[in-house]
Parts: sequence; structure tokens; C-alpha cells
Amino acid sequence: MGIPKEAKIELFPKWKSGKLNKITDVPGVTVGHVTKKDGEINTGVTAILPHQGNMFKDKVMAGVSVINGFGKSAGLIQIEELGTIETPIVLTNTFGVGTATVALTKYMLKDNPDIGVDTGTVNCVVTECNDGRLNDIRGLHVTEEDVLEALNNTDTDFEEGAVGGGTGMVCLGFKGGIGSASKIVTIDNKEFTVGALVMSNFGADGNLVIGGDHVGKRIKEIRDAKRKPETKVDDYQDKGSIIMIIATDVPLSERQLKRVAKRAMISLGRVGSFCGDGSGDIAIAFTTANRMPHYSDKLILDAQLMLDDRIDIVFEAAVEAVEESIISSLYHAETVKGVRGNVYEGLRNYL
Amino acid sequence: MGIPKEAKIELFPKWKSGKLNKITDVPGVTVGHVTKKDGEINTGVTAILPHQGNMFKDKVMAGVSVINGFGKSAGLIQIEELGTIETPIVLTNTFGVGTATVALTKYMLKDNPDIGVDTGTVNCVVTECNDGRLNDIRGLHVTEEDVLEALNNTDTDFEEGAVGGGTGMVCLGFKGGIGSASKIVTIDNKEFTVGALVMSNFGADGNLVIGGDHVGKRIKEIRDAKRKPETKVDDYQDKGSIIMIIATDVPLSERQLKRVAKRAMISLGRVGSFCGDGSGDIAIAFTTANRMPHYSDKLILDAQLMLDDRIDIVFEAAVEAVEESIISSLYHAETVKGVRGNVYEGLRNYL
Amino acid sequence: MGIPKEAKIELFPKWKSGKLNKITDVPGVTVGHVTKKDGEINTGVTAILPHQGNMFKDKVMAGVSVINGFGKSAGLIQIEELGTIETPIVLTNTFGVGTATVALTKYMLKDNPDIGVDTGTVNCVVTECNDGRLNDIRGLHVTEEDVLEALNNTDTDFEEGAVGGGTGMVCLGFKGGIGSASKIVTIDNKEFTVGALVMSNFGADGNLVIGGDHVGKRIKEIRDAKRKPETKVDDYQDKGSIIMIIATDVPLSERQLKRVAKRAMISLGRVGSFCGDGSGDIAIAFTTANRMPHYSDKLILDAQLMLDDRIDIVFEAAVEAVEESIISSLYHAETVKGVRGNVYEGLRNYL
Amino acid sequence: MGIPKEAKIELFPKWKSGKLNKITDVPGVTVGHVTKKDGEINTGVTAILPHQGNMFKDKVMAGVSVINGFGKSAGLIQIEELGTIETPIVLTNTFGVGTATVALTKYMLKDNPDIGVDTGTVNCVVTECNDGRLNDIRGLHVTEEDVLEALNNTDTDFEEGAVGGGTGMVCLGFKGGIGSASKIVTIDNKEFTVGALVMSNFGADGNLVIGGDHVGKRIKEIRDAKRKPETKVDDYQDKGSIIMIIATDVPLSERQLKRVAKRAMISLGRVGSFCGDGSGDIAIAFTTANRMPHYSDKLILDAQLMLDDRIDIVFEAAVEAVEESIISSLYHAETVKGVRGNVYEGLRNYL
Repeated sequence: MGIPKEAKIELFPKWKSGKLNKITDVPGVTVGHVTKKDGEINTGVTAILPHQGNMFKDKVMAGVSVINGFGKSAGLIQIEELGTIETPIVLTNTFGVGTATVALTKYMLKDNPDIGVDTGTVNCVVTECNDGRLNDIRGLHVTEEDVLEALNNTDTDFEEGAVGGGTGMVCLGFKGGIGSASKIVTIDNKEFTVGALVMSNFGADGNLVIGGDHVGKRIKEIRDAKRKPETKVDDYQDKGSIIMIIATDVPLSERQLKRVAKRAMISLGRVGSFCGDGSGDIAIAFTTANRMPHYSDKLILDAQLMLDDRIDIVFEAAVEAVEESIISSLYHAETVKGVRGNVYEGLRNYL
Repeated sequence: MGIPKEAKIELFPKWKSGKLNKITDVPGVTVGHVTKKDGEINTGVTAILPHQGNMFKDKVMAGVSVINGFGKSAGLIQIEELGTIETPIVLTNTFGVGTATVALTKYMLKDNPDIGVDTGTVNCVVTECNDGRLNDIRGLHVTEEDVLEALNNTDTDFEEGAVGGGTGMVCLGFKGGIGSASKIVTIDNKEFTVGALVMSNFGADGNLVIGGDHVGKRIKEIRDAKRKPETKVDDYQDKGSIIMIIATDVPLSERQLKRVAKRAMISLGRVGSFCGDGSGDIAIAFTTANRMPHYSDKLILDAQLMLDDRIDIVFEAAVEAVEESIISSLYHAETVKGVRGNVYEGLRNYL
Repeated sequence: MGIPKEAKIELFPKWKSGKLNKITDVPGVTVGHVTKKDGEINTGVTAILPHQGNMFKDKVMAGVSVINGFGKSAGLIQIEELGTIETPIVLTNTFGVGTATVALTKYMLKDNPDIGVDTGTVNCVVTECNDGRLNDIRGLHVTEEDVLEALNNTDTDFEEGAVGGGTGMVCLGFKGGIGSASKIVTIDNKEFTVGALVMSNFGADGNLVIGGDHVGKRIKEIRDAKRKPETKVDDYQDKGSIIMIIATDVPLSERQLKRVAKRAMISLGRVGSFCGDGSGDIAIAFTTANRMPHYSDKLILDAQLMLDDRIDIVFEAAVEAVEESIISSLYHAETVKGVRGNVYEGLRNYL
Repeated sequence: MGIPKEAKIELFPKWKSGKLNKITDVPGVTVGHVTKKDGEINTGVTAILPHQGNMFKDKVMAGVSVINGFGKSAGLIQIEELGTIETPIVLTNTFGVGTATVALTKYMLKDNPDIGVDTGTVNCVVTECNDGRLNDIRGLHVTEEDVLEALNNTDTDFEEGAVGGGTGMVCLGFKGGIGSASKIVTIDNKEFTVGALVMSNFGADGNLVIGGDHVGKRIKEIRDAKRKPETKVDDYQDKGSIIMIIATDVPLSERQLKRVAKRAMISLGRVGSFCGDGSGDIAIAFTTANRMPHYSDKLILDAQLMLDDRIDIVFEAAVEAVEESIISSLYHAETVKGVRGNVYEGLRNYL
């Protein structure tokens, strides 16, 4: 549902939201979570299915923007080269990438007996942030089963906040996590959707900006005043990251999707980030419209693209969807106490 | 000077400004303008000298970020490959790039008889925005003499607003132009300067944000109400561009300067841009600290870099300097009436 | 025509050549030269028209590979961003780029009164090598008239060797210049053409390899033995560059054209280059098949791409066409005596 | 040892080889293998230690060139952003990357209790090729123990050919695998080493070129003639990949190391590759000279770089070392019979 009206959060959007106000407003997209919360363990997995068919046989066009490459995501280089995604997208913690890659490989092998025998291998897309401020990340608690469960339990509706891959994430001094939003645009008299899902784990305490309002600065002053010495906050530096997934059914080319992904940096600027050194800020944009078959009798295929001259419609919608997704991740996340006694409060405590 | 206190413009900076609050607070840097205003002609040239010696013999380390490549700047590819700038930097209008390249070549040949004979050629850095909304750009009014004059008249102090290369520029629905600012940071107990100079020509009418305040939206409503039919405003789309030059004396490597340049996109996000398709947003960062000789007896040279782990200091200062430079360019620019009767008002009319 | 059979040059091609064995075998492509030879002046201009219509209104899809960015070509950044070329392509000497940009701008303005008034500006593509070993490059002898003449005199047939932009170029110790070749491939039971045109000015004396035969090594020994002291050869280092233009009518996407352009580095490897520091090796690939309109009622357009899985057909053809173009440029170039008494011999003297 | 003289393989090198003629001629570098051969299983792990200290605390400068991004290597994006490597480099098969990442993470955590607690995470560098033509790759036979064993058993001397990560690799129609070589260069009157190690798995049958000699073409004719119908060769297309690691003690910057890595494409051109679509050709170059500490009291650090003007020395040495490594991988690999009865012969059978 996104951020409810009574929250009185004003983001000055130009484009209206979709029905669920989530990435799943893009037809075919589903999302699943596995949340692992147990004392020092606060982590999990989120899976995004770009469509409901066989992703390997029927790839989606995609583009990546490595806004800040201090990150360990898997699969990005091949997206850049070939312009396609051929697996679901998994979001988890940094040290879960290896395990998630193994699990996603097995998931893909199961449905595709040709992989590694009659054809090449498969490029698993696994993204990550470091949830070590709330999670015992050194324990490598994400299992292959967790990943498969997230992949197998996706739906059009899904929770936001401290869930799935976002369970242990921290953002701008608050509890971060999963957030999502969508925008509806009109092109050639047809309605299209631009959706976003983020796993937010970036930014320094005090820097949050909502719709131009420097909220973070105000709340930091309040908190600094009332903070008891025993409330340990582990805020060395702006170490973090954000994963931003943008989905659309506008028939864009891979080059254009890369341009769209790049604009996610504007959303970061709007909410108070300056893309700190340690923040692995990664944006991936895909369209469900330009499908690329793995096998085809014909070698020359049709694709579509939007005249770049008016692509600002999609740029703005994407910037707004990512911005709202970030704020939504903060809005929905409840306070979490985790590893080493660290506590990160939910933003709603202060709204 | 920058933006005076009485302007009541609040940008929430973390770092204090330098003495002039201009790019020339970085020791050695000077700036010169040639302004051409004559009826339908509203254009000019701005030149930046990174240091006062022979730029070809004593190059500065530099990095580029092509935030949006809808632009015609010259010299960027070689900066990317070699990590150095070996000429002054010229800013002018789009169709002036060819002429400015010729003039800058001649300027460099004059002091370097070895170029093209005993050594290779020289990589002229010429950047541009399209001032066609106020200037008869088809007339190609920038001459070689204009460029040489700007190069030969640089100083530590210089004007901002509708001057030099910024004479005919338009930004976020207002008269844009040249703006500058500087920030002072402390690293290893030493003070360093991060300065910026922009030529602002981007953004859609109504989108201006100052320190989180959606000023542009408010002013647009006022203007839409009072606009007389004869006040023709030629605002097809967000076509424009911005050139952002960041100078510092922090000894950064070329890789780090590229990272700094990339953060200029955050500044754009803060002031209301979403990096529209037609906006050739280019950032160049250089340091005066890591000089590279053209000739050297020794092949292995010393350079310095800052531990990336704390480079956020420079990132933030650069983001703030570019943001303030943009607002300063708007603050200082007077209303200009130009080609086809187009009028763009100075922001100060509304403050 | 290309390299005649009696030359006994064996390159082991997999694909057969087109009718002219030139880039102009790609339907619609034409090439024109202006050659300037007068004592110390050995320079010129070559122009390529990707098609015979209005290039600004009807753009071609394109991709660029900056193999080594020690170069001063104009227009590459916008090709990278937008994936299109909207002017003819001009090849000239390094210090001619500014003048050629002015001339090409005027050429485009003449046919397009909307540029700079009702629409944005235009991205002129001008490429270059340094012909200073044979040409008085400091004299800036290329004029706007030369560029316009080359643009207005294009044809399907054209000369190779020491002509046009290649007049003063030097390659692998021999006289270099313009070379061209084409290959015919079959895709989906249809014949397509992959053509190339190079301006060769790279490589160290002694390194030439033809079809695996280390010819350069052998000839260098002969020449070193017989060289008279008065034959001054100005071979400081591998300073040079090569411009490689690849044209095709295979409907590739801009991403794929970039991949094709990147393979030109393999051709360089085959003929004896190791892409020396000073060699600005630039490849541009375009297709005449995926046209992009400047104006369009519909915002969503059809494009085509070839399944990447079989794009090796085009990769190989492009590698072979560029390799053969380089050898052809050497084969056709006659000995030239130029500035400072420098003499570079034609390769044919040694075959 | 490299390729023995009696092999009569002539590669026309300009630079002489080091003592071992292996990457381990670069002081501090060691290499370890785990080879898994058992019927349908033909795979393994190779580990490279850039130096013998704590890689996380004492990082090496590095640059990457993604020559063709059809690959699944881990860790490349962070090398690109930060210019450093902070773990050993692991080479294995495509579906082993996940497991190897987990193992390498655990290996790093063991020696660095601060990771994930007092400081950020760690960027594991794991590279891969698809050995599915000889190995039951779908069986995911590489274990964490295999990876740890390779990491713990490194030495200055090591085997080449069908060993370690190269056990199941196939190259240019022959059995491929691990190959290595080194070159000694003199800069500022000091000797430096440029070493390479490759895992070769690329190229089409018939395309092998050795020192200009089109050997592959000749051998293919012989083999096509004598091939019995029961000798099944599974040569769909040029699917493959090559990982090329270049090590040096020349104090290069990260930008320069990237330039060096890029030249590996020339080596590929020399041995008969055209960088086919399916070939994930990745080059990583690092120097042991410019160490970067994880922790430091001073934020501004000294680094060194070589004047680019003479970096051709390193470019050429790297091109030759990679070329010789590829040929050496083919020379040392014995015939292997693997999955689905596929047999790939050692090149030595035909020399």
C-alpha cells in the first residue's frame, strides 16, 4: 500500500502511483521474502521474479548503473555486456551472495536441463548490502533453503520494512529495509507502469531529507539530547549501500534502461545521501516488454525503444518511484535490536 | 563573495566557505570572462587556468564524470585515459567548441614549440552548453579572439551570473550562467580547499529547490498567473546542460577525482534536476597537487592519494560547493532579453 | 578493388569480400576525399556519409569503442549516450578537428533551419590522427572549405592510400593512410555487408604482420642495412593512432555495434600493434538498418537486433574487414616526403 | 620452466623471460592448485596470492578490463571503483564461483576478526570459465575444502596445463588450462618483472595461431580427415572464456594497471581469438609495489606511477607474457576424456 496518507509525508510527486504502489504493479512482477530474526541474527532474502515464465528461455532486457562500486553484487557484468537478465533477482546480505548464487544456480538448473550441457551456463543476479550493524554477518546465516523459499513464495503483494533482505539493514540513522513504490505514466496514449523496490542501508545519521524537509537534522538533535549512554549506536561512518531495482513495462532498450538506472542517483540526492565512499549504490532497471529468447529460429529479432527525446517521462517517474521506495522502507521498518546490543529505531517513532 | 547573507538562502552546508567563496580559493586557479551582449547575441567565453605555469609541461591530474552524455565537450576522452589536463579549461556555447578548440590550440602552440614537432599534439579541453534560448547560436558569434582574450584576462576574482560562457544560459526557468563557491576541509591536520565553478543551463521551469525548499514550484505559480501573452517564454523541454568544474589542492589520484566528479550528480538532485535526456551534464575534477611533467628523466614518479576510507570529506565538500555554485549562478544572473524576444528573469526578482 | 591478387598478400579471411571491397559496399554509404599536398603540407580530409538522406532527421544507430583514449575526436560521448550518429563522419588531422567541427556545423545548419531554434543543437562527429611526421601540422592547413568539399564530393568509389585525411599518415614504419574493405555475411538466409574504412597512423617500425608473416621485422633489417644517413626518419616512439569506421546493414542495436567496434582491437593485434600509449585507437560502428527519426508522432519505435548468440558472424567479418583495410591502406600508399625532410616509404616498394 | 626450447615454438618476444618464466617471478606471488579428476569430473581450483602478508590489511593496487562481459566473475566492480584487491584471487569453474566466494569469505574472516564488526566487509575476487565440455559442471563438484586447500598450498613453483581451475578447460579446439610466463623489463636502470597466468577456455577449433603460424588450420585439416565417427567432439560454438591475471612489481597506478589489462586483448588477437560472443574474456592486473593499508593514521598516502609516455615497455611485456601463457597452457595440457565421452587432445600430440 505504500505510505498511508495520514503519515503526512509530502514528496511532491509529478506522477500518480499504481494500485498497490509497489513494483508489482508492473504486470508479471512478483516479490517474495524470507525473514530471519533470532537474537543476533537479523537477516534474510528477498526475491524478485521479473515475469512468471522461464527466465532463462525468455530473458528480460536490462541495464545497470554502478553508482558507487563499493559492492559485491553478482551478475552485473553480464547484464552490462548482453543487456539481459535471465534469472530472478535476489537481494540479501553481503556474505550471503555466495550461498545465494549456489542456490539460484540450482534453482535454474532444475528447470533447464540444457544449461551446462547443450548450451552455456547461467548468469545469476544476486545483490547485497552489509547488514552487520544489526546482524551477526560473520555467521553466514543465509542458507540455500532460505533463498529457494524466497524464490518459491513470491506474490504480487508483499511486506515492506524490516523484512526479507532488509531485515538487518540501517538507513540514514534509522532502521532501513525493503521499500517499494510505483508510478503510472502515459506514452502514445497508453498507460505504463514504472515500479521500484529498494533495499536501503545507506546514509549518515542526521542526513535524512523528506520532500526537501531536513527531518534527519531535527530528529538527530532530539535523539542526541535524550540518548542514554547505554543505548549503543554503532555509527562509525556512512558505510552501507542501497540496491535499487526499477521495473517497467515501457518498451525501452538496454541502453535506455541503463540511463533510467543512472537517474536513481538523483533519488539518493533527494533523500540526503551524498553516495559515501563505503556505500555500494547499485541500480538495475529492467523491462518486461522487450523479451529476448534463449533459442530462436530467426537470428534477427524485433525490439522496441522509446524516442529518447521524450524519455524524461520515464526518468522522472523512476526518480520519484525510487525516492518514495526509500522513504517507504524507512516508514515501514520497526525498531530492531540486534548484534552487539545495537538498536536502530523505526522512523515512525519520530513522525 | 558568493551569495550574500541578506539573501536569506539556506543550504545547510557542513563545511565553511573559503575567503572568496569561489573556485579561485584553490591556490593557483584563476578565471577569466569575455561577455558578448548585443541584441540577439548573448554569449561568451569563460576560461579557467588550473595553475599559472606551463600547463603542457606541468599537467594536473583530473577525472571526468559524464553524468549525461548529450553534450559536445572536447577533450574528455583523453582525460579519462591519461588522468591529466594539459591546457586551460574553456567554457562556451555548443557551436563555439570548434572555434575555441582552434584558438586554444594556437594558444598552446605559441608557448610550446615542441608540440607537433618533437612531441605529440595537445588535448584541448573545451566544454559547452546550448545558449540558443537567448543567443543567436546559429550565428557562431564566438571568435578565436574572444577565446584568447578570456585566456589572457584571468584573475583570482571574477564575476558570476550572466557573464562569460554563461551570458546566454538558462537554468530551471530562470536566467542561469556562471556560479562559483568553495569549501574548506581539514585532512591530516591541514586545511585544503574544494572549489567549484559551474555554467548552469539545465532544468525545467518550476523545479528549482533551494535547501529543500521547493521555491521553483511557488514562483512558477506566481509567474503563470501574471505572465502577459506578449512575454514569450521558449520552454519546450528540459534541454540544457550544465558544466561543473571542481578544483582542489587535496592530493587525490585520477581515480578519486573521477569519484568526486561523479558526486556532482547529487548536487543536481538537490537543486531540482532529474538529469533530463537533453541535458549534457558534465563534471570535471582536477587537483593542483599531483602534477605530472610532460618530460622527465625519471620514468617512475611520486603521486599521492587520500585513503578512500575517509574521502567522504571531499565528496561532501564537492557536493556542497557544486550545489552552492548553481544557486549562486542563479542568484547573480540579471534578467536577459535575447533572441526571438525571449526573456529569462533573474531569480533575485523573486527572492 | 582493394588489394589485387597479384600482390600475393594472404590474410586467411573466412568471409568473402563485396563487389568494390570497400565500405561503400554497404548500400547508401559514400566517401569523399580532399588531399592537400604541397611541400611541407601533407594533409587532408575524408568524409563518410552513412546514407544519402538528411542525417539529422534520420539518424543511424551507432556504437563506439575507445580502445585507447589518447585522442581528440569530437562527438564520441553523445554517440555513447544516445546510440546514434546524426552527421556525416569526418576524418582529418588532430589540429583540424576544431575547423572541421565548425565546417560540419555549418553544413548541418544549412539543411536544418530548426537546429538551435526549434530543437537542440547537433553532434558533429570528427575523428583525427596526428600527421605531424609528414605534415606541418602546426600550420593548421585544413580549412572549412576543404571539409565542405570532402562532404560534397562523396561517391561509392574512392581512392585508398595517401589521400584525404590519410595524406600525411604513417603506419608501422611505412606510409599509412586510408584503407577500406568489405565482407559479405549471410544471416537468416539474407546477405548483409560489413564494411570498414581506416585512417592508419599507428605502430612501430618493424612490427608489421601480414597474415601471420612478420614482414615488418624482415624489411626493417633490409632497411636498417641500406639506409643512408641523409634519409632522416623521425621515429621517436609508437605515437600515432588509428580511426576505424565499421559500417553494416545488419540490423544491430547500439549495444551490439559497440561490441562490434570493440573487436577492432583484435584486428590491431593481428597486424602487429600492441596499442601503444600514444596511439589514439578509436573504432566507430554504425548500421544503416536501424534508423532513428529526429521527429516522430509516435514515441515508441521499432528497432531490430540480432540474437547475440550468433553475432560472431558479424564480429569475425568486422575483424577481417578492419584487418584488410589496414593492410590495404599500406598497400595503396605511395612514398611521401614531407616536413623536416621526413620520408616514409610505401609498403609496395618491399613486396 | 615454461615452454622448453625443443618444442620449437617461436613467438618473437622482445623481452626476455624471468627465472621460472611464471607469474611467480614477481616477488611475493605464489600459486596453488587443487585438481579434481574422476570420470565425469574434471575441474578444480587455482589460487593466486599477490603477496604473503595479510591481503585485507595490506591491499594491492589493481585494474580490470572486462574485454567481453559474458562472464560471472565475482569482485570486479569493487576493483574498478577502489583500485585495489584485498583477497587472494581464485580461479575455478562457473558454477564454483558461489562456493568459492563462501570459502574465500571464511578464509578472510579467520585472519581478520574486525571484518563485519569494526570495519566493513571484504571483496572476494573469484574468476571462472565454463568447463562443461569436459566436466559435469551441473554437479557443482567444487567444495569449500577444495578452495581452502588451494589457498593453503601455494608455492612459487606450480604446474601448468590440465591442473587446478584449468583441469576441464578447452581452448581453440585443444585441451586448455593453466599457463604462465614472465618478462623482465628495465625501467630507470632497475629490473622489474611482468608475469601472467591464464586459465584458457576460449576460441574455435582451427583458429590457433602460434607466432603468426596458422597451426590450427593445418591441424584441423589433419584431424577432420582422421577423426573416427565415435570420437565425439562437442564443439557447438566459440563458447568459452579466458581469465588473464597479470602481476608486476612496476609501481603503476590503478588507472595504468587497467590500461595494461586492456592490452591482453592484443594477446588474444595474436593467438587466433576474435573474442566471440560467448567468451567471457577478463583481464586483471595488479602490482605488488603500491600497497594500500586498510588502516592508517595518515589519510594522505604516497603512491607511485610510471610516466605514461614510456609505459609501452610494460604494455609490450604484458602482451607477450599473456600470449606466451596461453600457448604454454596448450603446450602443457595432456589429452583429457571427460563428460559425455568428450575428448580434447593436447596440442603436443600435433607438434
